[in-house]
Order: sequence, then C-alpha cells, then structure tokens
Amino acid sequence: MPLGQRQGDKSESRYCGVESGFEPDMPRLLTRSLSSGFDFLLAPLVDPSYRPSSARAAGTESFALPVAASDLILSPSQWSSHVVGKVSAWIDLDSDDEKIRMDSEITLKQEIAWASHLSLQACVLPPPKSASCSNYARCVNQILQGLSNMQLWLRIPLEKTEPMDEESKVADHGGRTTDTWEWWNSFRLLCEHHTQLCVALDILSSLPSLYSLGRWFGEPVRAGILITDSFMTNARGYPCLSKRHQRLVSEFFDHSVQIVISGECRHNISQEVSNDNMHDSDNENYEGAIYKHPLRPYLDYVAYLYQKLDPIPEQERFEVGYRDFLQSPLQPLMDNLEAQTYETFEKDTVKYSQYQRAVSKALLDRVPDETASTTTTVLMVVGAGRGPLVRASLQAAEETGRKLKVYAVEKNPNAVITLHSLIKLEGWESLVTIVSSDMRCWNAPEKADILVSELLGSFGDNELSPECLDGAQRFLKPDGISIPSSYTSFIQPITASKLYNDVKTYKDIAHFETAYVVKLHRVARLAPPQPVFTFAHPNFSPKIDNQRYKKLQFQMPSDTGSALVHGFAGYFDAVLYKDVHLGIEPSTATPNMFSWFPIYFPLRKPIHVPVQSPLEVQFWRCCGPTKVWYEWCVTLPSPSPIHNSNGRSYWVGL
Amino acid sequence: MPLGQRQGDKSESRYCGVESGFEPDMPRLLTRSLSSGFDFLLAPLVDPSYRPSSARAAGTESFALPVAASDLILSPSQWSSHVVGKVSAWIDLDSDDEKIRMDSEITLKQEIAWASHLSLQACVLPPPKSASCSNYARCVNQILQGLSNMQLWLRIPLEKTEPMDEESKVADHGGRTTDTWEWWNSFRLLCEHHTQLCVALDILSSLPSLYSLGRWFGEPVRAGILITDSFMTNARGYPCLSKRHQRLVSEFFDHSVQIVISGECRHNISQEVSNDNMHDSDNENYEGAIYKHPLRPYLDYVAYLYQKLDPIPEQERFEVGYRDFLQSPLQPLMDNLEAQTYETFEKDTVKYSQYQRAVSKALLDRVPDETASTTTTVLMVVGAGRGPLVRASLQAAEETGRKLKVYAVEKNPNAVITLHSLIKLEGWESLVTIVSSDMRCWNAPEKADILVSELLGSFGDNELSPECLDGAQRFLKPDGISIPSSYTSFIQPITASKLYNDVKTYKDIAHFETAYVVKLHRVARLAPPQPVFTFAHPNFSPKIDNQRYKKLQFQMPSDTGSALVHGFAGYFDAVLYKDVHLGIEPSTATPNMFSWFPIYFPLRKPIHVPVQSPLEVQFWRCCGPTKVWYEWCVTLPSPSPIHNSNGRSYWVGL
Repeated sequence: MPLGQRQGDKSESRYCGVESGFEPDMPRLLTRSLSSGFDFLLAPLVDPSYRPSSARAAGTESFALPVAASDLILSPSQWSSHVVGKVSAWIDLDSDDEKIRMDSEITLKQEIAWASHLSLQACVLPPPKSASCSNYARCVNQILQGLSNMQLWLRIPLEKTEPMDEESKVADHGGRTTDTWEWWNSFRLLCEHHTQLCVALDILSSLPSLYSLGRWFGEPVRAGILITDSFMTNARGYPCLSKRHQRLVSEFFDHSVQIVISGECRHNISQEVSNDNMHDSDNENYEGAIYKHPLRPYLDYVAYLYQKLDPIPEQERFEVGYRDFLQSPLQPLMDNLEAQTYETFEKDTVKYSQYQRAVSKALLDRVPDETASTTTTVLMVVGAGRGPLVRASLQAAEETGRKLKVYAVEKNPNAVITLHSLIKLEGWESLVTIVSSDMRCWNAPEKADILVSELLGSFGDNELSPECLDGAQRFLKPDGISIPSSYTSFIQPITASKLYNDVKTYKDIAHFETAYVVKLHRVARLAPPQPVFTFAHPNFSPKIDNQRYKKLQFQMPSDTGSALVHGFAGYFDAVLYKDVHLGIEPSTATPNMFSWFPIYFPLRKPIHVPVQSPLEVQFWRCCGPTKVWYEWCVTLPSPSPIHNSNGRSYWVGL
Repeated sequence: MPLGQRQGDKSESRYCGVESGFEPDMPRLLTRSLSSGFDFLLAPLVDPSYRPSSARAAGTESFALPVAASDLILSPSQWSSHVVGKVSAWIDLDSDDEKIRMDSEITLKQEIAWASHLSLQACVLPPPKSASCSNYARCVNQILQGLSNMQLWLRIPLEKTEPMDEESKVADHGGRTTDTWEWWNSFRLLCEHHTQLCVALDILSSLPSLYSLGRWFGEPVRAGILITDSFMTNARGYPCLSKRHQRLVSEFFDHSVQIVISGECRHNISQEVSNDNMHDSDNENYEGAIYKHPLRPYLDYVAYLYQKLDPIPEQERFEVGYRDFLQSPLQPLMDNLEAQTYETFEKDTVKYSQYQRAVSKALLDRVPDETASTTTTVLMVVGAGRGPLVRASLQAAEETGRKLKVYAVEKNPNAVITLHSLIKLEGWESLVTIVSSDMRCWNAPEKADILVSELLGSFGDNELSPECLDGAQRFLKPDGISIPSSYTSFIQPITASKLYNDVKTYKDIAHFETAYVVKLHRVARLAPPQPVFTFAHPNFSPKIDNQRYKKLQFQMPSDTGSALVHGFAGYFDAVLYKDVHLGIEPSTATPNMFSWFPIYFPLRKPIHVPVQSPLEVQFWRCCGPTKVWYEWCVTLPSPSPIHNSNGRSYWVGL
C-alpha cells in the first residue's frame, strides 16, 4: 500500500520496500511484509550457502539451483510486482582466489538468469568490495547485453570510511572516507552508461557533504536503502531521522527514488503503542493471526515524512510528464505554430502582465500627462500571433490613459485569420491594424514609437530574436523603444545521466550536437550559471554583428568531490523595459511563469572533472546567410571535440 | 456520444459523424450535430466560393482566408475532437485550365495549413476527377512531407459508373464501371505509401462484388461515408440497409472504420415516431429549443446495427492490442523463455487437450488392454518447459489405465528449477525424471516408446522442430512414435498496407527480409492458402535433409479486380497422432486455441497483380551449420529480388 495519498504524485517513490534475508517460506514472508504496509520485498533469490563448485559434483543433469521459491510457489505476476531480487552478497568477482572468482561469476549469471525467468523488474547487485572491480563490471556488462527489461541496481554505500593503517591514523585523527561515487562512476563507465544499470544507495547514520550528495540527483538512483542504524530516537522512544536525513528522504520522494528499510529493529516499542499508529488495518498475516513486522515503526516514520510533503502544485503536476523529456526547440520563424500551441502559451498570465507593466512604463515615459489626450503613440507588435501582446498593450494604454494605435504584424497566415476574428470579437477595429507579413520585409506606412515582441527562446536569442528585431527596427523611430530592450543567455554544467542516455539512443553524432528544450529534473547542477551572450535593441550601430564568442570557467564547490558533466543547462534573462524583467535563470527566475523550460546542450562524451579542477567551456553563436547556429566545446580539464561545426547537426533557419 | 456500449470495443468505429455543407455558424451546427447524437462533423473549413486569384486583387497584407470559423469561435480542442475538415470539392489539380489548376493548388495548401493550425485529426480530400490525377498526387505528396500528425483521407467512391459513348452502350447494355481501387492505388503509389494518406469510402446504393470489396480491408480505410441514397425503406417507413450493406457496415465496425452519414433526408418520419427511438436524451440545441437533426433516423439505424453486434469474446478482447502489431518470432532454442511466457502458453487448454488425446490414442495403440498392468511405456517430453506436456501425458496414462515412465528433458535451467518445484508439489517423484539438458546432446539411459514435443512455431518448422527432433530420435525405439508425427506450413498472399508501413519505418532492407508473428486483422486475404513444406517424424532415412524448396501459383478469384500484394501470411497444420491434429491454417484451424498468431513474410516492394494474372511465389528453407533460414521471392507477374539471401537478415539459430 502506498505511503500515502499525495495529489498528483504518480511516482514510484510512493512505494516502500523492506529488505529481508534468505527465507524458504517466501509466501509467508511476502504476505507478512505486504500486510504490514510494505509494497515490495528486497530478498535473496538463492540459498546463500550455495557454491557452484561444490554443487557441480552432484551431477549436472538433475541439478537445480537452490532457489528460495519457484514461479509455481509465487506466480510470475507476484514475483514481478512485489519482489526485487538480491544477488548473493558473498560473490567477489575481483577476488585473488580463482575458485571464489569462478564461483562468483557462475552464481551471478545463474541468479540474474533466474530473476529474468521470474520477470523481476530489478535485481540489486552487492556493492563492489573495493574501487578496483573491473572483473565484476565486465561480467555485469556481459549480462546487461542480453537482459530484456530488468534493471540491475548496483548497491553503493553513500559513505565509506576505510580502515586505516597506524601511521595515517595519527595524521588524520580518524578514518579516511572514500568517495563511493567514484566506485559507481568507474563501474558505469566500464559498462558504457548502460541504461539498465542503476544505483541503490545505502544510507547510513553519517551523510557526506551537501554538494557531494547533490551529484547523485543526476544519476539513475532507484532506491535509497535506509539502514535502521541511521535512525535516531525521539523523546517518546520512536525512530526518527536527523534533519539532513529527512531532507534527503524528501528529495528521494521528489526524484522517484524508492525507500527500502533494512536492518535490525533498534527501537523497542510495545505493540499497543504501535497499534495507535498509522497503517493499522489489514494487519493480519495469512495464518489469520495478528503479525507485527519488527520494522513497521520505521515504515510508519517514512510514511509520516511522505504525508508531511506539500501537495504538488497544479502547474508542477501538469509538467511532471515533461520532466527530463527531450523536446526539439520550436522554430517559429521557419514553422507556423498551431492554434493549440498559441493557446497554451497565451495562458501564461505572469508573462503578459510583465509585458503590460513594461508597456505602461514606456508609455508614461514617452507621453507626459499633459499631452496624454492629444498624443497617439504608435505601437507595433511584431510577431503578434493570436494577439496576446496586442491585448496587453491595449490594457497598458487603458491603465495609463494613453492613446494608442497598434499595428499587429504576423507572418503566419493562419494566426492572421485568428487575429481578424479576435479584432472583430473584441471590437478593436478602430485601434488595431492587422498586417499579414514577415516583419523583416514589411513596408510600414509610418514609424513606431514602441516595438513589442516576444521572440525569445529558452536560451534567449535561439529563436532568432536578434535577427528579427534588427529587421524590424527599420520602422522604429530613432528615439523609439524596443520591448524587450535586452536579453542574456546563461549556462551551467550538469550531471544528467538520463538525458545522456536518451540522446545516445539515437545512435548518431547529430543528436549529441543538438540543443533540446527540457524540463530538467533528475540532474545535478554542479556550479552556478554564468552569462553567455547579450543582445540589446534597438541596435543602430552601422554594422550589426550578431555573432558571439564566450569562454567561461566554472569552479565546483570544493566539497563536491569529482563529477561527471553530461552537458550544459541553458537559461535566459530579459530586460523588457528598465526594471521590468522576465527570465528563467534560476537565481532571478520570474515566479510562476511556465512558457519556457531550460535548454540542454549535450556533450558527445561526458567529461570527468576531478576534485577542485576548473571546467572551461567555450560557446559560439555563428551566423550564415540562411541559418544561425551554436558551436560549443570543453577545453578544461580535457578538450572535447568542437560540437556542431558549421551547424551541421543543429541550426535555426532564418 | 458513441453508437452504443459494446464490451471491450475501444475502437474508433464507435463514433459516427455527419457530413455538412459550408456553415458560417459553426457553433450552432456543431451543437446541433452533437446533441443529435453524432460524434463529429465532416465540414468544409473555407467558403467554397473563395478563389485565390480573385481574392489576391484585394491586397495581400490585410488578406485573411474566408474560414467558416476561427479557433476563437471554436476552441482548438473542440476543433480537434469534433471536426474532420473537408477540403473544397471544386478544386481540380489536373484541370486543363491553368488558372483553375493554380487556384486549386493554392486553396488546397491554404486549407490544409488552416486545418493543421486547428490541429484537426484529419481532413478529407475530394475524390480525383479521373484516374489521371498525378498533379493532385504531387501536390498532396508535398503537403504530406510537412504535415505533423494530421491524416489526409482521400475520398473514393466505392463504385463508379462512367458515362458512355453511344457505340459501347450498344455493346454493353449499360454503363462501364471503373475500378476505383485503381484510383487509390495509383495515388498512394505516387505518394509512396505515406502513412498519413488514408481513404474515406463513399458508399452508394450499389456495391461492387464481394472479392473486390474485400481488397479494401487491407487498405488504410478510416471512414465509410454512407450516402442517404444507399438506404432502403422498411415497412414502417424507416431507413434501413440491404443485407450486403449491413455486412459491410459490420465489417467497418470491426476494422475501426468510422461511419459518416451524408446527404439529404430521404425518409420523412414524424417527430413523435422519431422520439420513441434511441438517443432521445440531450436533444436540445444551444438555443434551448428542441432540434431534430434531419439525418437522425439514419444515425439511429447505424446505432441499431452497432448494438446488434455480438459482444467481443474475451480472448479476442485480450488480443485486440496485438492486432497488426509486428512481433519478432520467439527463438526458444537460442533464448530462454520467461516464466510469464510459459504461464501464458500453458493456459491454452485446447492445445493441451489435443496433446492428451494424441498421447491416449498412442498408448492404446501401443499397449493392448491385456498387458496394461504389466507394461510400462517410456515417454519422453523433449522441451518440457514448466511441464504442461508432462501433465497432459500423465493424464492420458490415467485416462487409459496405462503405466507410464516419463522423462522431462529441458535445456532452460530456469524452467528446470520450476519443473523440480512442480514434481514436488504434485508428488510425481516416482513417475517423472527431470533431465537438465539439450535434447540434441543428452545420453538417454534407455530408449523411448513415445517422444512428445511442442516445438512448433507459427510456420510449423520455423522454431527448428525438425532439427531438434532429428537430434532426439536417437533415443526413440525403431517402432517408436513421435507426437507430432508431421506438420505442414502454408502461405497466402495478402494486402496489408499497415504492416508494410510498419516495416518501412525501420528504413532498412533487413526488416523487409524478416518474418514477423502478427495477429493479422487489417488485411485482405487474396487467395486461399497453399501448403509449402512438410516434415514427418521420426525420420530414419540414412541422410536427413531438412532443406526444402517450393514453387506456388496463386490465382485470385476472377471478380477481385487487380490487387497489391504486400507479402504473405503463413500458417501451419500439425498431425499430432493419426486423426488428432492441431493448427492455425484458416480452413482447418483448431477452434479457441490461442498459442499461435500467423507469421508474416513481407515483400520489399509491393507487387501489383493485374486482373486475372497468376501470382507465382517461391519459398526455400535453407540450412547452415549454425542456423536455418528462409528465402523467398515473387516470379510472376513480375520478379522481385530474392529476399534474405544467405539468411543475411533473418535466421533461426541452431
């Protein structure tokens, strides 16, 4: 039964599991766990005392693996919905002892084959015994090549303190901690980022530093195994977690990471007290007697944390389906948008009220109160679409008491039909002139005081706002105002293994040299964003050049450890007019605006950035006669190829 | 509102549309149609009096297409859920008059662009004016290249009688009918089978011959437009359809073809009478007054036909999701099946009761009643899986009172684990010996009287039953029995545009040279199946050769007309023992058996077979040291390349 009802939460993390040891009476174990409120079992599939080398002697033809239970004892659907397999923990594929190594390899393959036979959704692999685990990785990699749908979750302790020799103990006053993320990183690099290779994190009483922890949110973490040792005890004797542990569990809930409770019961709570708690229906096991699961108090606490979460806001709920999903950026200049697309974007009231504020301020600056009744301001909306900026401008005029004449210039003939319909429905015939034309070639009958446009993409200039406005400013008065008046793009390095793998499925270089619009979610943001390109309008310089080049250096916080960079998240911020701005750069983002998701620039090969190393990145904006494109590369700590040379893979048509 | 509730029917054909003329008050038209029980409108989007060449003079910058209604009058979601667009019928892209031709091209493109703007799901294109319509096809093809999701339904009259000159009238005593399928065929060949190009069929009072009609069920027919003229009148004055028309409509319901009612009301029924009929709730239009749609009686009749349909049987309902969906055939010899797969196939009780009957007959033949209590028959199940044939055999022994010793030979070690569990659960330890081995290399301790196997694929020998049984018969007594004792594959030419397009999406030759398991549904079966390869067991000939070669000639029924062959449907029939058989060849198929869907052999390029032409096909079964494969080709009416030479694209591993 899920941890609770949280509106809009359809994620896996509603389900909580419990780890168990080898148990030949699986039906009883499962019934007890499910009836105690757990949703699934993390359980060994095979008797841990089994060793192939000893079993072999008994004769192969009548040999059968000593499994906990067959698919006749539990049905395949029970197995696949309620059991995550646990590969025998004794295996050691990098042992110096060849017999152990051979036994380990055979067992690993047999257990995974059996788990596949049962159609399990996942199996947990025991943690590597040390950082050197290439033979383990090779064997897992072989298995992954032939695996149908099952995931393999490599178990990794979040923190690991190595036993120390006497000498260094004196120097360090304690154990030396190993960065276990490095274990995971080498393992997955050896397995070439296989999509079915994921992580299960063991959470102990001590947690690594904040930034170091943060890296995991860009990795395919599927489960957080809460060891009972990591719980504290509250005043009433119940288990509870430290603030930092609580925050981590909340983050897991938010990132579809399932919690598994594991270990001995460390808190002795009498059954009466426990009964007053949540989840106390269905508490019968299949023998009919009341059964109390020893780990139930921990589950209750985790459920309490889940139920304490704020409900998912409506906008967020709508966007859940877009999380970490690669979309091609719109090309509104080359393609005509559809009515539904216009309709969706028109609903962004925050955005249009910012525009209205900007136009109001510009009108007040341009026309003093004294001449308000006699002066008519000429305002041109370039790229009017179905008219939201026309509406915002007319509202600004009404609000400020200024007289306005509006030209609505639109190149999409279908949107023009809708604009005509709008003008008629609203009775704006005397205020608005519709122009069915591309702003870059329209011969305006008069010059404008204000030019209003909404041509910005997620990366600011990526929908060619600079080129369009350069073309349109021909009919702006020399002292005229452009809204927006300037905009800047930003980038930030991220770990994003899901996005990397999604790009990789296309099996070509072109997709690795393409920018995508993505609602970033399962990513680790490794350093604060930095500005890239800025454009200001109008730009009356004699020779306009919209090409740009920027070199940036990112420094990750010192306690991050090393990290893997899969690419860059891109954002923009725009000044509409004076202090009225609009943007998605995280530190200054306009609240509750939903028109733009970030943009993602991938790297063909993820870059490993060692501890304390700077990351140097270079971005170009290049312009040709028919298209504009970006090129990018990494130069430090090690050079990547230059991506998208000549815009061969990704470009925006003029 | 759907035509009725039919359990398990989720298909489009539950929804019925109505065709209308140009109507500037679209909201009223839509409300009236929906409140009368229709689900969607087939309506013109643009004023049919509009001609671009006249409109142009008025000036382009303020020009807007004279549309019936904008996306502000009806919302994008209303448009896309309830309106199928109708492109102006006056357009004629193959006119000799250049002005008409140019006007037609501009209008066609503008109307489709507008329909895309509204996100319509489909637009109906007017029928070609004649068989020669290449410029029309070229223009549609251009449009298709840039279309996002919308379908274009080319309207085709099911039957067309050409006006005749005096001379031939004397000879033929009437009009000459044109095969309008040829219009469709040339149009879609010119458009390279584009997946978004579909058909809307106009159904008139006279219908073409049965086989000629049958061809359409292999084509992407999306709508059947029932012209009111095609209805007859029943004794009470209500519209009804001829038996043949009824059958056609039922077939449409079964093939996701939507019905659209079109034309003038030909049946004057008083409102009172009509009110007693179905669908009489919600009969209010948006002005609040009761509105009677003139075509409502026709809708009621179509709903009556729909509601008269038998409910979809449970098995069929389960299989709906598999219809026309390409699956790779199982390779149980190379790959291990999963528990769920075994479980599903074990549920096929019809199949296993046929096996039980066969084993019973064999036991009775082999052991006379007199020695029943003293003779133990040795039966080996080769490829025992999780044991269904072991069970069937033991049941046969019990039924016949014969003593049986069973060996269960299975190469999948995971299934062997389950077998052990089964033997223990059933208490069969003394009756059954489990052998974990490949039957081709097992050293049997004794010889068998009966060898039972279920190694057949959809095409009989395609899962390498011949090779496996040849290997296993080493341990069959010289007079021993193999169940099955023989099996034969069959093929039949089909039209299957959906399958053709699905294979084409892979964009390589390999997928066109691969056989697929498919629940065939939207196909036209053009001629009766013919046998291809036969295998019999045991085969004690000194040199066993499982290679085969067969040349077949198919003749389509003479009233079919010409046809397009996309490939071949394959089936099998197996003799288990004497008169006990098992199979999926349509004319002799075992009822209610669900273990096998047909197999589909595609052709790289569909073959046009002219009226009365024979179709010659050649099939090879080839064997190499590590694999077996098929090659196939068409030699008449025109040669195709030989498909899958050397098994380069598709093979079954030994």
